[in-house]
Amino acid sequence: MSGDPLAATCPAPTTEHERVLLGHGSGGRLMAELIDQVIATELGVTAPPEDAALVGIADLDLVFSTDGYVVTPRFFPGGDIGSLAVHGTVNDLAMRGARPLALSLAYLVEEGLPIEELRRVTRSVARAAAEVGVPVVTGDTKVVGRGAADGLYVTTTGLGVRLREAYPSAGSGQPGDVVLVSGPLGQHGMAVLDARAELGIDSGIISDSRPLHRLVAAMIEVGGAAVHSLRDPTRGGLASALNELAAASGVGVELVEQHLPVSAQVAAACELLGLDPLHVACEGCLVAFVAPEAADRVLTAMRALPEGEQARRVGVLTQGPVGRVLARTLIGSHRVVDMLVGEQLPRIC
Amino acid sequence: MSGDPLAATCPAPTTEHERVLLGHGSGGRLMAELIDQVIATELGVTAPPEDAALVGIADLDLVFSTDGYVVTPRFFPGGDIGSLAVHGTVNDLAMRGARPLALSLAYLVEEGLPIEELRRVTRSVARAAAEVGVPVVTGDTKVVGRGAADGLYVTTTGLGVRLREAYPSAGSGQPGDVVLVSGPLGQHGMAVLDARAELGIDSGIISDSRPLHRLVAAMIEVGGAAVHSLRDPTRGGLASALNELAAASGVGVELVEQHLPVSAQVAAACELLGLDPLHVACEGCLVAFVAPEAADRVLTAMRALPEGEQARRVGVLTQGPVGRVLARTLIGSHRVVDMLVGEQLPRIC
Repeated sequence: MSGDPLAATCPAPTTEHERVLLGHGSGGRLMAELIDQVIATELGVTAPPEDAALVGIADLDLVFSTDGYVVTPRFFPGGDIGSLAVHGTVNDLAMRGARPLALSLAYLVEEGLPIEELRRVTRSVARAAAEVGVPVVTGDTKVVGRGAADGLYVTTTGLGVRLREAYPSAGSGQPGDVVLVSGPLGQHGMAVLDARAELGIDSGIISDSRPLHRLVAAMIEVGGAAVHSLRDPTRGGLASALNELAAASGVGVELVEQHLPVSAQVAAACELLGLDPLHVACEGCLVAFVAPEAADRVLTAMRALPEGEQARRVGVLTQGPVGRVLARTLIGSHRVVDMLVGEQLPRIC
Repeated sequence: MSGDPLAATCPAPTTEHERVLLGHGSGGRLMAELIDQVIATELGVTAPPEDAALVGIADLDLVFSTDGYVVTPRFFPGGDIGSLAVHGTVNDLAMRGARPLALSLAYLVEEGLPIEELRRVTRSVARAAAEVGVPVVTGDTKVVGRGAADGLYVTTTGLGVRLREAYPSAGSGQPGDVVLVSGPLGQHGMAVLDARAELGIDSGIISDSRPLHRLVAAMIEVGGAAVHSLRDPTRGGLASALNELAAASGVGVELVEQHLPVSAQVAAACELLGLDPLHVACEGCLVAFVAPEAADRVLTAMRALPEGEQARRVGVLTQGPVGRVLARTLIGSHRVVDMLVGEQLPRIC
């Protein structure tokens, strides 16, 4: 093969990119590879496909989760970087079945940020935290010079304690489980895009950013251990979340495409931009795998809350192919719903 | 006064700067004002002068602390941004008398960072965490475009549980307490400056970055509740740490200048640059207020460990003036050791 010019110029596999790409932050396949092959490898751990970690001490199951927020613009219809940071971290705790106990708040500020803007974001953090009922107990502020950041980045870390009645985990889905989705898909991503004026239209789409801990508590109250898996489909959208959960659970997923909740506005905006709404981030929506005998009562409990009133069944788990997510279309054919590869919408959260 | 031109041009007080300045991240007075008047005010809390928060659940005293790291350059003599992030957060937990249980790790990466560098930093995180004996249990990775960050920023959050024998707090110092310092001052800040080649000399100064949880455990083992206050003097140096602790405890501090441990290298480099070593950051050193009857045995316990072998008494707490830190000089006069105002060394941690 030494004479074959293709052999010399063939691009390296994506896992051997020499530099970090925007796509490594996408929530999709590139990010999974970076985390798996660089970060988890060096830490000497197997990267669990979970949004939050369990920390056992005494007889408590503590839940611990961290997230950075770099959304641009910082203020968008339905929220801002402050409320988003609170909701995102509370939701990561909730997806492990936890009640939030405390939040930390780390600001990374670019020199020159108007103090009024820092005040406004902090006020939004405070309002969101009060609405959840979780105190911000500790924090940190770092300032870097002009050009070394883009205004303001926020990192929130959450500490929670697990509800005793259920142990939702990415790997606990079972064939036959019903797939439930709590609300319309793609609202957050499209609202942020719209705020960037990249849509070139005034779509009126509002982010779904909101806390989901009460919804999860209601689901667990009626469903208990039948609530197998929970995930809020943020970066990478529902498609990436389902691919990760399916692989972790060793199951396939079969969706009914017409049951997937996508608002007419989001569908139209996605069509305009050539985006798949299943790859667009949500920030106030969850997907659940629930044992079939409990699915009806869990769904009823979800619909009784504002954040779950549009909840619906969207599919079932199958024996396989393992990790494969299929959507049955209106005409009865199937399409593969793949993980996001590369970056679709940078800095969406 | 309406005819007085000075009245019209007098600069606004520092608390009303309209934009964030580098000095707001200094660890000194400007930062204290920003946190107090903007962040704590909007969160509706009184900013506690502590490095870590207590979270009580069941009968456990959990300790929770977060810190962002923006040090430049990322690799310096004695450490790098990864080991620094682990040590800094472990030390913040230790200053509240806590044993570390778990860490989270959030990366903010600028597009284009060599993956090998991310690997190297992560390896350093892993090594430092293993040396401490604390697992990194959860994390997050965000990527922003070129020019929206400076390579790599790291935010670590730590969860710990309080040792039962003592309750060190910034506000617990008492007049008569002995002031102990565990090691030489200013090593970290000067090592980073040297790595930036700003000293213009090859000073050979090495950062003191290291974990202090074992030192604290040894102090508490022999000193118990007599260990009143602990602080690692990072940004703003020993001067800022002592000013904060003195104000919180309602005491004065009287230091003996010649007892303050500053290496000849750091003293020379500071003199060259016109810096006060008491304002330069340490990352592996602590200051303690200890009841006089326990001071000798605490000091002996400190000296038995490598990280405390240079520990010494440097002063005492007085009735006041409250919040005033004085240093008695060789010739018997006193000088005021003030908090850092503005920014001396940006991006030192």
